[in-house]
Amino acid sequence: MKQEDLLIHRLRAYGNSDIYPFHMPGHKQRGAEEFFNPFKVDITEIEGFDNLHHPEGILKESMKWAAGIYGADQTCYLVNGSSCGLLSAICGSVTRGGRILISRNCHKAVYHGIYLQQLRSSYVYPQEIPGFGIQGGIHPGDVEKILDRYMDIQAVLIVSPTYDGVVSDIEGIAKAVHRAGLPLIVDEAHGAHFRFGKDFPVSALELGADVVVQSVHKTLPSLTQTALLHIKYNRPGGGSYVDVDRIHQYLKIYQSTSPSYLLMASIENSIFQMNGMSMEPFIKALEKLRKRLEHMKKLRLVKEDVKGRFGVFDLDRTKVVVSTAGAGISGVWLKRRLRDKYHLEMEMCGADYVTAITTAMDREMGFERLGTALLEIDEGIGPMERGAEGAAFFEEGSCIYSRPNAVAMTISEAMDGRKKSIALKESAGSISGEFVYIYPPGIPVLVPGEYISKEILHLILSYIDKKLPVQGVGDIKLQTIRIVDRE
Amino acid sequence: MKQEDLLIHRLRAYGNSDIYPFHMPGHKQRGAEEFFNPFKVDITEIEGFDNLHHPEGILKESMKWAAGIYGADQTCYLVNGSSCGLLSAICGSVTRGGRILISRNCHKAVYHGIYLQQLRSSYVYPQEIPGFGIQGGIHPGDVEKILDRYMDIQAVLIVSPTYDGVVSDIEGIAKAVHRAGLPLIVDEAHGAHFRFGKDFPVSALELGADVVVQSVHKTLPSLTQTALLHIKYNRPGGGSYVDVDRIHQYLKIYQSTSPSYLLMASIENSIFQMNGMSMEPFIKALEKLRKRLEHMKKLRLVKEDVKGRFGVFDLDRTKVVVSTAGAGISGVWLKRRLRDKYHLEMEMCGADYVTAITTAMDREMGFERLGTALLEIDEGIGPMERGAEGAAFFEEGSCIYSRPNAVAMTISEAMDGRKKSIALKESAGSISGEFVYIYPPGIPVLVPGEYISKEILHLILSYIDKKLPVQGVGDIKLQTIRIVDRE
Repeated sequence: MKQEDLLIHRLRAYGNSDIYPFHMPGHKQRGAEEFFNPFKVDITEIEGFDNLHHPEGILKESMKWAAGIYGADQTCYLVNGSSCGLLSAICGSVTRGGRILISRNCHKAVYHGIYLQQLRSSYVYPQEIPGFGIQGGIHPGDVEKILDRYMDIQAVLIVSPTYDGVVSDIEGIAKAVHRAGLPLIVDEAHGAHFRFGKDFPVSALELGADVVVQSVHKTLPSLTQTALLHIKYNRPGGGSYVDVDRIHQYLKIYQSTSPSYLLMASIENSIFQMNGMSMEPFIKALEKLRKRLEHMKKLRLVKEDVKGRFGVFDLDRTKVVVSTAGAGISGVWLKRRLRDKYHLEMEMCGADYVTAITTAMDREMGFERLGTALLEIDEGIGPMERGAEGAAFFEEGSCIYSRPNAVAMTISEAMDGRKKSIALKESAGSISGEFVYIYPPGIPVLVPGEYISKEILHLILSYIDKKLPVQGVGDIKLQTIRIVDRE
Repeated sequence: MKQEDLLIHRLRAYGNSDIYPFHMPGHKQRGAEEFFNPFKVDITEIEGFDNLHHPEGILKESMKWAAGIYGADQTCYLVNGSSCGLLSAICGSVTRGGRILISRNCHKAVYHGIYLQQLRSSYVYPQEIPGFGIQGGIHPGDVEKILDRYMDIQAVLIVSPTYDGVVSDIEGIAKAVHRAGLPLIVDEAHGAHFRFGKDFPVSALELGADVVVQSVHKTLPSLTQTALLHIKYNRPGGGSYVDVDRIHQYLKIYQSTSPSYLLMASIENSIFQMNGMSMEPFIKALEKLRKRLEHMKKLRLVKEDVKGRFGVFDLDRTKVVVSTAGAGISGVWLKRRLRDKYHLEMEMCGADYVTAITTAMDREMGFERLGTALLEIDEGIGPMERGAEGAAFFEEGSCIYSRPNAVAMTISEAMDGRKKSIALKESAGSISGEFVYIYPPGIPVLVPGEYISKEILHLILSYIDKKLPVQGVGDIKLQTIRIVDRE
């Protein structure tokens, strides 16, 4: 390997390029100078620096301070991402072999927790936002229905906001869950910034959730792989819905016994920065961008007035979601065009939309570039513009995360059982042996133990065809899939 | 919180202090300039930068290159420490509820894997090094005996080298394990540097191990929380002892789905640095130090001639282990004296010794300071020198990791069962409900499900008394312990 081929050099080249990042991490390549020369501050558990797995000193104090800012009874710094927080919340709240109710549009880390704990899972499905093909929120009534149907549910886990910024009615859901005497875990990976501005949605922590997991690297100026787990265990009238000790038992297991002080310091510092920062300049620049985008003719900005079956959703306006539905082009095409012609790197694209992540660390220049680029593209959209992948895709009801799959067995039964590889094209009717998802967002389209229906297969094949980042399929190039072997 | 109280400022203060680090991480506060301003190079999975959980591009190439250097069939970069590598190796090699044979002096991460997979565990015990009270190596004959006794063992896991640098006869152990048709997993957390110098011991990878886990931050110039998992699946005569797919399945689960590119680049870069670096200056300076320390009269340098029941052990000379056994002072006293008077921070101390970690990134100045300090202390040791904790401790046969505890139930039965808290002093005869260990090294003295014998209780209490960093005991201040509640 030549020195110039080292990963670090490629990363620097990207960091120094003209490309503007509308993707994670939230620090947008800008951070506190104190972190320059990371080796100087990268230590291990020595005298005076406490121990994340047995905090008794400065780390304990720091996490107490963070809990105060977020309004939690307890806050834990996580150095293995939201993933380890979700695994710990699940394994710490549901006993082996028990049942959990989750929203079907959860991140794959949640399904990993279900596998590890050998859980039976029941699903509540996000509503689809008509005309956009993107997932909406979870309705409390839907949660209540399933709670009534299964008496053995031990915990409820909902993702809110979605990757696209759609916020569910957590207050209503929490009421329903607590009526059943159960804990509500909220995957708020994309909501670590909610607490810091009145223009952001309200955090699940203030709406009755018992455990809330947030990625700090997604929307705060922290290094990648950092997250927070908040716990509310003091319920009005006393009592708690969560087993704090068991959650901690798993946090000790799912995180390295040599946690990085660089990452821990980055978490603390990002909260300190946000807490002392006015969000006004950011909000002003963001709203200016959103106003400009309302002038698009074919592309459409997703706004608060998007309605689901049950009325308007709350929306995190920092997620700039642009729909191509009806514009006759695909999200893949738009994402590529923004990168290749305008050097603007989006966070992700779906079949019919692209999503840009904006944070308080963004610069107005970036917003101006994005606005100008989108208006210019919108202006020029015509048949001649499209390549093969550019062809229109949208069909009403195509939100892949809102349609139930028939379940044949639990995730762990399927994953631990005998499997075989077959051609994806011929897999309709078999039971999936693996997770199939588009990454990002990393939400499983197919879960091990679910039947592969003709419809879902059609969608997966068309997604591969559209060059969407489909993962999990046994071998994407050979287009095979591992299925449960029932012979 | 005031800005100057932020963790990052305390870390910088330590980094800029006169204290010389004889502890991890192995970069010794010095690293490649390309990493300065970590925010510039900290990105997420965007076009062209591959995906650690589905490597198809530059990460795949990089790990292939690393495998070539280490002589592995496959190498994986780990961003959640050796911990996630050990969890994955265990869960990927032994089915739920199965049996594993491990050396009893394994790190607690290994016991976590046993818990998660609900395994039955059989133990082989390290020999004690006579006159030193430190753990020696594992003898192949002992492994063979237990393999003959239990026919349901599915994998064998040995830690080598130990935290103190004692290397076991991996070649002999691998032969015995393979005769039984089983895979050998070696926790070589402290041996990532073995490959890079003829003066270091030979790596388990070259001696027949099937899976080898190494911490790169311990002895290579990489950031904390970075590690490697190596796999050898091509056996002479074909066939493999390991299920590579299952190990990967768990690596995807136990590591963040947002792995840090900063950490990945640091792993790659540290291997690149070591590969291009001559070890000679380091070895020369190290040997000069060791030669000086041979002149100590009361303190004793642990050397190659330490013998166990079965002859001489191989020793990693980069670990400078100084025994206080017979000198009439404790390891705690010596460690504190080295820090307080000489500003030399050791990696750890046991009851009767201190351990300094040295790497290729150390400076000769550091070695000179350590040599001078130890000789001076050795010179001055007298009764008046000692405080309460300074009192002699050593008793022959006191190596806590070499004595078996009676087992009442499996680790998961104990951890998931009903527990209660009682006074530690009154716990003799009960079944432990938690792990009790000294951290570092993090080797459990008591494992959940083991009986608390009078002897072990006596040792734990005396260790607390000696101010050794005892952890896991329910509440160290109240001196309570959680035991299995059998009423």
